[in-house]
Amino acid sequence: MIIVASKGITTDQLDRIRERVEALGLRTHVSIGESRTIIGCIGDEARLSHVPLLSIPGVDSVHPVMRPYKLAARDFAADRTTRVSVGDRLFGGRACLVAAGPCSVEGAAMMAETGRAVAGEGAALLRGGAFKPRTSPYSFDGLKEDGLRILTEVREETGLPVVTEVLDPRHAELVAGYVDMLQIGTRNMQNFPLLREVGQLQRPVLLKRGMSATLKDLLLAAEYVMSRGNMQVVLCERGIRTFGGETRNTFDLAAIPWLKMETHLPVIADPSHAGGRRDLVAPLSFAAVAAGADGLIVEVHPDPESALSDGDQSLTFDGFAALMRDLGVFAEAAGRTL
Amino acid sequence: MIIVASKGITTDQLDRIRERVEALGLRTHVSIGESRTIIGCIGDEARLSHVPLLSIPGVDSVHPVMRPYKLAARDFAADRTTRVSVGDRLFGGRACLVAAGPCSVEGAAMMAETGRAVAGEGAALLRGGAFKPRTSPYSFDGLKEDGLRILTEVREETGLPVVTEVLDPRHAELVAGYVDMLQIGTRNMQNFPLLREVGQLQRPVLLKRGMSATLKDLLLAAEYVMSRGNMQVVLCERGIRTFGGETRNTFDLAAIPWLKMETHLPVIADPSHAGGRRDLVAPLSFAAVAAGADGLIVEVHPDPESALSDGDQSLTFDGFAALMRDLGVFAEAAGRTL
Amino acid sequence: MIIVASKGITTDQLDRIRERVEALGLRTHVSIGESRTIIGCIGDEARLSHVPLLSIPGVDSVHPVMRPYKLAARDFAADRTTRVSVGDRLFGGRACLVAAGPCSVEGAAMMAETGRAVAGEGAALLRGGAFKPRTSPYSFDGLKEDGLRILTEVREETGLPVVTEVLDPRHAELVAGYVDMLQIGTRNMQNFPLLREVGQLQRPVLLKRGMSATLKDLLLAAEYVMSRGNMQVVLCERGIRTFGGETRNTFDLAAIPWLKMETHLPVIADPSHAGGRRDLVAPLSFAAVAAGADGLIVEVHPDPESALSDGDQSLTFDGFAALMRDLGVFAEAAGRTL
Amino acid sequence: MIIVASKGITTDQLDRIRERVEALGLRTHVSIGESRTIIGCIGDEARLSHVPLLSIPGVDSVHPVMRPYKLAARDFAADRTTRVSVGDRLFGGRACLVAAGPCSVEGAAMMAETGRAVAGEGAALLRGGAFKPRTSPYSFDGLKEDGLRILTEVREETGLPVVTEVLDPRHAELVAGYVDMLQIGTRNMQNFPLLREVGQLQRPVLLKRGMSATLKDLLLAAEYVMSRGNMQVVLCERGIRTFGGETRNTFDLAAIPWLKMETHLPVIADPSHAGGRRDLVAPLSFAAVAAGADGLIVEVHPDPESALSDGDQSLTFDGFAALMRDLGVFAEAAGRTL
Repeated sequence: MIIVASKGITTDQLDRIRERVEALGLRTHVSIGESRTIIGCIGDEARLSHVPLLSIPGVDSVHPVMRPYKLAARDFAADRTTRVSVGDRLFGGRACLVAAGPCSVEGAAMMAETGRAVAGEGAALLRGGAFKPRTSPYSFDGLKEDGLRILTEVREETGLPVVTEVLDPRHAELVAGYVDMLQIGTRNMQNFPLLREVGQLQRPVLLKRGMSATLKDLLLAAEYVMSRGNMQVVLCERGIRTFGGETRNTFDLAAIPWLKMETHLPVIADPSHAGGRRDLVAPLSFAAVAAGADGLIVEVHPDPESALSDGDQSLTFDGFAALMRDLGVFAEAAGRTL
Repeated sequence: MIIVASKGITTDQLDRIRERVEALGLRTHVSIGESRTIIGCIGDEARLSHVPLLSIPGVDSVHPVMRPYKLAARDFAADRTTRVSVGDRLFGGRACLVAAGPCSVEGAAMMAETGRAVAGEGAALLRGGAFKPRTSPYSFDGLKEDGLRILTEVREETGLPVVTEVLDPRHAELVAGYVDMLQIGTRNMQNFPLLREVGQLQRPVLLKRGMSATLKDLLLAAEYVMSRGNMQVVLCERGIRTFGGETRNTFDLAAIPWLKMETHLPVIADPSHAGGRRDLVAPLSFAAVAAGADGLIVEVHPDPESALSDGDQSLTFDGFAALMRDLGVFAEAAGRTL
Repeated sequence: MIIVASKGITTDQLDRIRERVEALGLRTHVSIGESRTIIGCIGDEARLSHVPLLSIPGVDSVHPVMRPYKLAARDFAADRTTRVSVGDRLFGGRACLVAAGPCSVEGAAMMAETGRAVAGEGAALLRGGAFKPRTSPYSFDGLKEDGLRILTEVREETGLPVVTEVLDPRHAELVAGYVDMLQIGTRNMQNFPLLREVGQLQRPVLLKRGMSATLKDLLLAAEYVMSRGNMQVVLCERGIRTFGGETRNTFDLAAIPWLKMETHLPVIADPSHAGGRRDLVAPLSFAAVAAGADGLIVEVHPDPESALSDGDQSLTFDGFAALMRDLGVFAEAAGRTL
Repeated sequence: MIIVASKGITTDQLDRIRERVEALGLRTHVSIGESRTIIGCIGDEARLSHVPLLSIPGVDSVHPVMRPYKLAARDFAADRTTRVSVGDRLFGGRACLVAAGPCSVEGAAMMAETGRAVAGEGAALLRGGAFKPRTSPYSFDGLKEDGLRILTEVREETGLPVVTEVLDPRHAELVAGYVDMLQIGTRNMQNFPLLREVGQLQRPVLLKRGMSATLKDLLLAAEYVMSRGNMQVVLCERGIRTFGGETRNTFDLAAIPWLKMETHLPVIADPSHAGGRRDLVAPLSFAAVAAGADGLIVEVHPDPESALSDGDQSLTFDGFAALMRDLGVFAEAAGRTL
């Protein structure tokens, strides 16, 4: 932590700041410049994190120099890449994994049909929501445990491991009992009781970036999960909220390479929510893979026009087949396989 | 709902769109313009909300014309203002209510001291967090039930009704058993299981706007609570996340008058989180009251420099006394009392 | 400037960084911490501003500690408030000045009528656009020099000094020859040739914040004008562009007190553009004055429904009269006059 | 244009709205629904654009259905792709064109060296700023006409057509006399006098998206240029300003495919400004090409550490060589050449 003193700080004020910092076990180092005095704080910066330094007289600004996350930081992992196993698939390896399926599990038949279709085109996982967060209380919110049961049936038939969202800390164990990977949705990225709950389970977690979360916030959310003992976290860029109104969200593509440099966790992208339009899914997918993503999560529906949610952004089976065919070329260009 | 057709839509496509809409019990009304054909959909727009209209061939754009919330809409309340009772105080009446207290309940002595101080200066409610959401898993996260107990002791001594945050749906009943008003924090504005839980309790709810929530999102979150039977909701503007880095958040002042025109629910402001700096609390408070806010929620601490959270933005007792004195003049200018 | 070294920086890298900084006449001060090494740079930070420090091996992050503006910084003015004279009015004194008038000068009659009306209600200045920036090339873009002539005629009749926008560096002298105050619009806040041009004239400048400008950017834009010798700058908050779609812009109210602490220049607000709706003008105006604004600029039109631009947000004469009456009470509460 | 009436609109109000619209030569079509009345306006919507419809009693909301741009809209061009010739290169054809060079022209030697290096690696154009917009008035702002002269010398030696920024409408002709393509920078995307000036010249224009411009704003800016007769416009996504602080700007990748669907103009990307960091240039470039970009503009400098501007994001010659080598693979995957 570096503290920049106000112009005209007094000796007493300076002493008091130093005492405050040193009382927490850090050392201080004062540099008196031409126009500003700077106090370097050496030691465990985390101890200073709750100290309201700006409220101490004589402090003008405060500059943290350490990353606030540890387990999620790239330095933490010896070989600098964590591989996350989901069923017999591996996130973070050479293969780019595509999770595909409908927004919501709407019934057994449509899920089975979708499972077969996406498995046939090379999807690595099956997605489908059994518990749905909906902006309006009047919208369809999922089949709940029936949906989970359907997902496991389709897994049995297709061999695809299954990822589904968990919304409520009270359901975490239940959901983990059925599926292979637990998704934390964008609205729950900072639902701390939920993060702690999935941190205590031994199921891999797909953590989606919050709509207005910085990348540091995302890594701190991963840290919540990891600090409880569950190190199997995959991060997902899915678009952020900005002034731009032409697409559903703003796909922050640079998040992918930035995260790959900053953390050892695998990083995937959700082109369906990022763009919000079927015809944007393919170009966003190609871009994500070209930028180094370890995978994608894509919405596919047997009949998007009749989907109970997210129909506008869901691919048809034909659309998914075309996506996978073209994606293979970009994966190869990126030195990956599908 | 108004559907604008693509250029060159075929008769078949047009018929199909109409059939789809009419199958849901709405009527359609087609206007053929010089360059565009428009399909008006007359009836209950909510039934169309899950239909992926954009994915139907021939549809160019879709324009909802109804508000997606009902109970929260201004039209809903006959006299156009809901009054929310908290203990013996009333949000939405002539008086502007100020809730004051520390970010976190740190102990019995500091809470008692704070309670007496803010009661003496005219605060209407006492605030204090027993369960704290923290961006880092390594930060202090509250005294939990001990904190709730302390809050009730200070209520007994001071007579101030108490508002505190509830984070976890599993704690909703517990918290409601202790305090007078349940706060839903900014990170939980779209935590739907939690909203449903507090919707089933008979405790007034202080609903803070999410960091990247539109005002429509905020009203839909209120609708979640109200649709479960709890109509006692107070809305709170607390700043949004934008590119602006000079203040902790961007205080969206216009949200206050906009909400007052759009809903019958009371609206208050949180100048402490909006500005994130002690010296911004007073001007933001004056502005909120001038713009028509029904109250404020303000952080006050006996010794901000030693606060375990939010010390930078907490007022001292003297600071709070000065705020209340000056605020009275603005409340009067706005035709209100404190 | 503080430079934080990468983990594992070598002695050679450290030496090279120091040499680079010292070659520019600054001194360096190295603190070796437990996990990070920090290089304090003491001296004229501006000399480092063009050095791509992040591209030097061994540099992890860079933290400027000096403000990049000098003339606009609060410290610069001895008595900490600059007063800007426009005609016989003074921005930055005890009086809150209200500039009022139509978005565009549409003709002599409507301007004269408006001038008389707003003068009668206590406006301090007359506004009106002769050169209009329009998002679409097909919109009305002003009466140009004819509009300037009309403005001076109304000034003669009403005694109100006149403020109008200048868009084009080629017109700066022409406009300055007619009016009392030159407005730089939001789209031109970083039009550097234009800023330099008005910096060479001796006309006060009303500098509106860019739609996505930070407050530091705004002060640097003021610095452009001031560095050319024209110190008569008034800043104006007019709303920024965010995800919030319910109002035309997001009125960043906290900008007003933040700027008042950070600069010696007067600060006013534009509630018409910030809200974009007639019924938001009054509450935003009250809030701005309560938060310490030195004035307002408000759109008023004899018949908003027939206005050639910004009709939705223009007040009628009656609306303006009501605003001024109510505003007086808030100005008094803030210790100001109108 | 569709007008949604307020609840409880009177017949008189409805008549008045219709009269207002019909007076402009449009027809109206009224649909009376269960809870809302809707007025469809049929005809030339542009005539309604300046009418303050929201200020007419009885109007609740207004929904434009036509695009506000014409010449830039995809429908305008018969074969749906405009090809823009710059020297002997063609934007919008099968080849992906890479413009490369330093941020600023710093001198003849470094430009010649850079020109030779980038030409050798397959760059299609040379970039370099002679007039530089700088946030601070104290930063280096370019060599001006000397810089232009240097650019033409390097063109002569290398055969690369040259693109450079024009900042000031007074310099447009001068700059057009020297270079092959005129760049409008992000801060000038809505500098309307400048847009009009370049619209009257017969030089292709590289139009960069404003920092907070929507894609519709960008197309309207293109419309300004085109409406003056210069149809040779290439659009450039270069990152927008959002809350995200980890990269210099937020690269809005989806803008590329969205624009390709919405306009017939070529679209390129600027990965250097979007990411602001050398190590992000390659992944952002790959992604842009994968998403369908018609080209890139990349900063390259012989010695980034000593660059007078943008050194942090400039590639070395070796870095550029590596970029071009890897980019070729992605271009091929996208069915393009370099």
